[in-house]
Amino acid sequence: MRKIQSEGICFDGNQLKILDQTLLPFEETWLPCENAQDLVHIIRRLSIRGAPAIGIAASLLLATLARKGRSRKDLTNDCVLLGCSRPTAVNLHNNLVLMQEAINSRHFPDSVVQCAEEIFLEDIQLCQKIAENGQKIIDDDDKILTHCHTGGIATAGIGTALGIIRTAHNLNRGVTVWIDETRPLLQGGRLTSWECSKHNIPHKLICDNMAAQLMKNGMVDKILVGSDRIAANGDFANKIGTYSLAVLANFHSIPFYVAAPYTTVDPNCPDGDAIPIEERAEEEIKGVSGSFGTCQWVPDSTEVYNPAFDITPAGLVTGWILDTGLYTIKDVLEGKLIKR
Amino acid sequence: MRKIQSEGICFDGNQLKILDQTLLPFEETWLPCENAQDLVHIIRRLSIRGAPAIGIAASLLLATLARKGRSRKDLTNDCVLLGCSRPTAVNLHNNLVLMQEAINSRHFPDSVVQCAEEIFLEDIQLCQKIAENGQKIIDDDDKILTHCHTGGIATAGIGTALGIIRTAHNLNRGVTVWIDETRPLLQGGRLTSWECSKHNIPHKLICDNMAAQLMKNGMVDKILVGSDRIAANGDFANKIGTYSLAVLANFHSIPFYVAAPYTTVDPNCPDGDAIPIEERAEEEIKGVSGSFGTCQWVPDSTEVYNPAFDITPAGLVTGWILDTGLYTIKDVLEGKLIKR
Repeated sequence: MRKIQSEGICFDGNQLKILDQTLLPFEETWLPCENAQDLVHIIRRLSIRGAPAIGIAASLLLATLARKGRSRKDLTNDCVLLGCSRPTAVNLHNNLVLMQEAINSRHFPDSVVQCAEEIFLEDIQLCQKIAENGQKIIDDDDKILTHCHTGGIATAGIGTALGIIRTAHNLNRGVTVWIDETRPLLQGGRLTSWECSKHNIPHKLICDNMAAQLMKNGMVDKILVGSDRIAANGDFANKIGTYSLAVLANFHSIPFYVAAPYTTVDPNCPDGDAIPIEERAEEEIKGVSGSFGTCQWVPDSTEVYNPAFDITPAGLVTGWILDTGLYTIKDVLEGKLIKR
Repeated sequence: MRKIQSEGICFDGNQLKILDQTLLPFEETWLPCENAQDLVHIIRRLSIRGAPAIGIAASLLLATLARKGRSRKDLTNDCVLLGCSRPTAVNLHNNLVLMQEAINSRHFPDSVVQCAEEIFLEDIQLCQKIAENGQKIIDDDDKILTHCHTGGIATAGIGTALGIIRTAHNLNRGVTVWIDETRPLLQGGRLTSWECSKHNIPHKLICDNMAAQLMKNGMVDKILVGSDRIAANGDFANKIGTYSLAVLANFHSIPFYVAAPYTTVDPNCPDGDAIPIEERAEEEIKGVSGSFGTCQWVPDSTEVYNPAFDITPAGLVTGWILDTGLYTIKDVLEGKLIKR
């Protein structure tokens, strides 16, 4: 099995390692991942996140285990275990379907290694194509607002929504970025800020509730977000707060785009109502915790509600930027999103 | 000068004391306030906040100083100093105009003490009347979403928007409250949760970016917020994030109300564009700080934008709930908001 190195995933020829995203931006620590239980834990605590990255890490783990002699039966059990780790993102499930086919193949275990490597290498290409297709909607000097984190460590390549922005920056399009901090887990404040800094992309951080006023004041030209699952009708799930931005963009007549690889599309999911929404722990709302420390400002007894994702209906989306192309609502209604 | 005790302001017959709201919900500490510099510092760091409370505290301080023999000239300078402490809320300025008249009165210094006492006692009545007028818009079992904090410690009485909710709860209307945490300073998470708990009002806390999805899912019947300044045309300033809620409410056809005393109306301000918006320190966005500890998750070098308030245009408001009555946009266009 060849060596693998992306911005957030590493296979050094022997062991799979995952960059611990909970410790960013202040610490870059790589977590060894020996078995499915390890990875489930790593995924659940969001040490790795980003719909494509989760699926790729799971695939690479299965490959390393197959290479070390793990049986088809045990690998099949691993697939089940990994598949339950996060319900909303579909890339993981899509990738595991392919991996299960490879486990069942008569070329086992080579088939498993080959399949995982293909998934990894393909995602790099998918990011590249998303970034190319995304350039069509970028105008020079665009002020782009984004939510959560959709960059290199969320994929095997340069990212999805943030990959488009990074490419536009590299092409000297003069783009600047407004970053939503993305409560409760601060993926915008911690990860997107960090990645924009690393690539010298001009950016400013705001709290999520400030986006509307920026739009009203003409300070946002476009909104560009990622996705964890796109239904056949174009509805999509993404980090909580995305739907809010879509409504606000609609009200202010600001174009709103979603960017994702085809592996994020779920043809079996007719619409957004069929996408499961993960609810997460109360502690996330009651404070913050990370390599920067832990604070809780809400008494233990206070009840909270913590949906990790929301659903944006297709009617609020200006365009779907996939590796396969740029789609309008007309294209989506014609079923082009789910055709390959 | 009589003794004064509200939920957040105390004059014990000798000294003015302010409940330090930055230490809530975990510590209830009363800060002594000896002079205008003290109070400016207390206001700037938000140890006291809430548009009515700031104005009342300033008035009471001037009264204690007048009582102790401070000259008209020095008190006039104090007025100027206090007036600059927070630009957006107008109650402070409205109160200081009255206090300046009392300083100039031939009944000085008694006039100053009397004026401050009247302002304090009047606000208790104003809160009561707002709460009464607000009952007209409450339906049994309403699920009400609110932003920031508008309860007892933001006024001399039971509060504005939260006073309406508290009164509805006391009348067994079966109301429940969704509380926006209100980044960056967490007035919802720290103060509104605390006050709802204290009065046994059923409530759940969310992050600001979750409100839209709640509205989409039919989990919000009404939105009720306070204000720092209402312009003559009904536009109003309130804590950042309020405008976002108003747009989202409009999209989801959810009634959106603002509650405030007449002292929050600025007849000299024709519309929202004329209301100054305070920008605050970067540190507020880069982390959190309070009696619960201090965390910073964003590198020092990251640029941020931190407007403390936003403007909601009158066209997005279903009703203005004042002590003087409940007003519709038609009333506002007829100038009824600024008539007394």
